[in-house]
Parts: sequence; structure tokens; C-alpha cells
Amino acid sequence: MSDDRNMDMQTESEMLLAEGKNEVTEALRSGRSIEHIYMLDGAQGGPYSTIRREAKKLGIRIEYVDKNRLDRMSVTHSHQGVMARIAAYNYVDVDDLMWIAKKRNEDPFLLFLDGIEDPHNLGAIIRTANVCGAHGVVIPKDRAVGLTATVAKASAGAVNYTRAAKVTNLSRTIEDLKKQGMWFVCADMDGTSMYDQKLTGPIGLVIGAEGKGVSRLVKEKCDFITSIPMKGDIGSLNASVAAGVLCYEIVRQRMGK
Amino acid sequence: MSDDRNMDMQTESEMLLAEGKNEVTEALRSGRSIEHIYMLDGAQGGPYSTIRREAKKLGIRIEYVDKNRLDRMSVTHSHQGVMARIAAYNYVDVDDLMWIAKKRNEDPFLLFLDGIEDPHNLGAIIRTANVCGAHGVVIPKDRAVGLTATVAKASAGAVNYTRAAKVTNLSRTIEDLKKQGMWFVCADMDGTSMYDQKLTGPIGLVIGAEGKGVSRLVKEKCDFITSIPMKGDIGSLNASVAAGVLCYEIVRQRMGK
Repeated sequence: MSDDRNMDMQTESEMLLAEGKNEVTEALRSGRSIEHIYMLDGAQGGPYSTIRREAKKLGIRIEYVDKNRLDRMSVTHSHQGVMARIAAYNYVDVDDLMWIAKKRNEDPFLLFLDGIEDPHNLGAIIRTANVCGAHGVVIPKDRAVGLTATVAKASAGAVNYTRAAKVTNLSRTIEDLKKQGMWFVCADMDGTSMYDQKLTGPIGLVIGAEGKGVSRLVKEKCDFITSIPMKGDIGSLNASVAAGVLCYEIVRQRMGK
Repeated sequence: MSDDRNMDMQTESEMLLAEGKNEVTEALRSGRSIEHIYMLDGAQGGPYSTIRREAKKLGIRIEYVDKNRLDRMSVTHSHQGVMARIAAYNYVDVDDLMWIAKKRNEDPFLLFLDGIEDPHNLGAIIRTANVCGAHGVVIPKDRAVGLTATVAKASAGAVNYTRAAKVTNLSRTIEDLKKQGMWFVCADMDGTSMYDQKLTGPIGLVIGAEGKGVSRLVKEKCDFITSIPMKGDIGSLNASVAAGVLCYEIVRQRMGK
């Protein structure tokens, strides 16, 4: 019982519960530090066998529990009979993100998330950051959601692979990185069309919150303001869709297409 | 009481509750046929006054109710003290979508949603279709979610503006439209990079379900298979993000950028 309560506290902070067959398998595969696996007593089938085998190999203890217990622990309510408790998410420094780019011999490409509060959007954006080859995401310490279980689920496991840095003051971090040669771009309606904006070189893309957009202080620090062409009756895209469209315009220009 | 039950039935079928200040205002502005507005007794402030004024102008009755009643009727659980009951969503024919393109003097640009089941993704895709200037969406009758209140909310009101056609057999519709000169493209890992694929002209973009992708029968009918370049550890983007990235590659090529 005290164990459950402890987990509940953890899920409210930064920890990670991997929930469901795919997510637990991803977590095992990614090398994340797993503290404990909870599996439905009597769970049968290939994916469960794989999880048992991998866990044994890594010396991770599996506790067999009943459905009630899993239901109570579950945050996403789709645990499929297996959950893993993962060591608190390890944030890195912004310098580490720059180092990843250097190691890959690529111009840095970082995403700055300015107050994204919806966990589904945050998860989808982290997934996009991973898929499009960005070197990491930067999240402000106070005003945004952390990497919770819902975010992890929405990211389809990408939180396990994508490096994230938490910073106290987004605009100060931007200022520091500009001194290191980074360019910063944010999206807003009044910007230059993204198709006419040079988006190559060491770049930080700032994504604002749904509805509010990029905050004034952060916007002032950006070198460029760019816009996604809009032709409809509705004034904006979903935040994670907008982030995806902008990331892939950067990818296209980097590929010289 | 029977009135509430009636509303619950409606929301389980095709959409029909606009919930929250923005959505009700959008519904009033869009000219959708609103049957009834429910407002929290004593609701104060600009948005509520605007809704009252517009409703009066259009001769729509406002019923003032208590919070309990709204909570019970609400599907999205974020009604903000105001909800509108809207006449059942009016689907159009695929021919109507073609006609809209013709009227705008543009090459047709339609989205075909092959089994998208997550209402948040469906809403975000309809929003993207509207914003990027597509002429409508085509949804299969049986296997996908309809335009429910959750979809409407996720679309940020775009369901009120975007034309949708429901068809019995997606691959037969594709066949018919190919005879009218449409080209069909779907996204899959093994396709030609979207940057190297000509995506101009009268085009139907087929979006597959998260996880499953485009179904085999539908894929066989497509003229081209295209892919979004992927560089990360995770094998795919969120379905609505992928749809957005593809739609905007079409927009870019159409703009000759």
C-alpha cells in the first residue's frame, strides 16, 4: 500500500511509469534505468515473454500483481497488464545538447518549448524532435508540464531517447547560445513565410503554447519570426502539428531540397 | 431529464454539442444551425455577452441552467458555463468537395482518412485540412470515429467550416476519382522521399491510422507512395503531425517554393 502511494507521488513529479507492452519493451530496449516491473499474474503471450526474458537478462525484478493493483497504479488507464517504474528522468545540460550535435558533426538543431502545457502536445513534439533528427529539447523549469507518464505515452517512447534540458530562464539561455553562434527563430502570424526564410545553420526553433503563442520576452530574443502559410477559416494549427511542419521545413532546407 | 438523455444520445452519434466559450462562439459565427444554447445562470463577462447578443440576433433560445446540469451534459468536461446543441453534422458528397475546388478555381486537394480512430488526431487533422486550404476530408463510413464533440473540440472549431464526406468504400471512391483525373498518394516508410515526389495537380492524400498505416487495399489504389524522412530512434510520427507535414509539403509545391 505504501508502495502504491509512493508511486502515485512519483507520477505527479517527474518519474516515469512506462505503461503497456510497447512502452515497457521500448524502455527495456533503450537502456533506461528500470527499477521495477509490475506484470499481471498469468499474463500470456509473446510480448510478455520478451519482457520477462529481457528483464531477467538485465537483473530487473518482476512483481506479479492482480488487475486491481495495476488499475490503481495506472495513470494512462491502458496498462495492458504490464508497467515499469523507471528511474527519474535524467535531464541534461544545454551544453550536453550542443555536444551531441558536435559529436554527430552536425549544426545544432534544438527545440525550445515555451510553456507547452498539454501533455499530449508535449509528447507528440518530443516524438517529432526525435524523428526529425533534432539534438534535443529545452523546457523552462516553472511554467510547463514535466515529463510525466502521459507525456511518455504520447511520445510513443521517444522520451527514452530524446535528450531534454530544463532551464530556469528561457530567454537567458537563448542569449547565451546566441553567443555560441546559434540562430533563433519562432513562429508567429506576422513573420516571414517559412518558405522564404533561411532556416539552415545552427538553429533553435521556439515553439509557443497553444492559444498564447511565444511569450513577448522570448520573442524579442529571436533573430527571426517565421510563419506557416494559412489559407483557411481557422487561425492556427494544433501546437504539435505546427512544430512538426516547422521542423520538417528545417529538415528540407538542411537537406538542400 | 428526458431532454438530457436525448442530448447524451446525440453526442454518442454525430457531434452535436459545442462546449466552451470559443467553440460556441465559433459555431454561431460559422452559420451552423444551432438548436439551443445552455448557459450557466449568472455567467458574466464579455464572451457570454457576445454569445447572448449573437443568439438573440439569430433567434436562438438560451436556457439558463445550473452547473450540475451542464456538468452532466458535458462530454469534454470543459464547458466553461456554456454549451450549444447543434443540428446533426451535415455530410456532403464527394462530388460537392470536387465542386468546392472548382468554384475556387483550384486543383482539388482532398484528405482521405483511412481508419483514424483517435478523436484528438481526427480533430487535429480536420483543423490542418482547413488551415492548409484543402477542400475537404473523406471518411469511411464504418471503421473510423465520427465527428463527435471530442473531435469538434480538438479541431478548435474547424469541423464547422471543413466539408466532410462519408463513403462506404474508400478504395471504390478513389477509383472513381482517378477517372476524374485525381492522383492519389499515401505515406509509408518504403516510399519515395516527399521532397523528391511531385505532389502538385489534383491530389488525394491518404492518411493511415496510427500504428496500422494505410490498409493494403487502399494502398494498392494509390498512384504514389511517399515517405517523410526519418532520422531518429522512433519509427514514426504522431498521425496528425505526419498529416500536417505532408499537407504542407503539398502546399509548398503548389506555391512553387
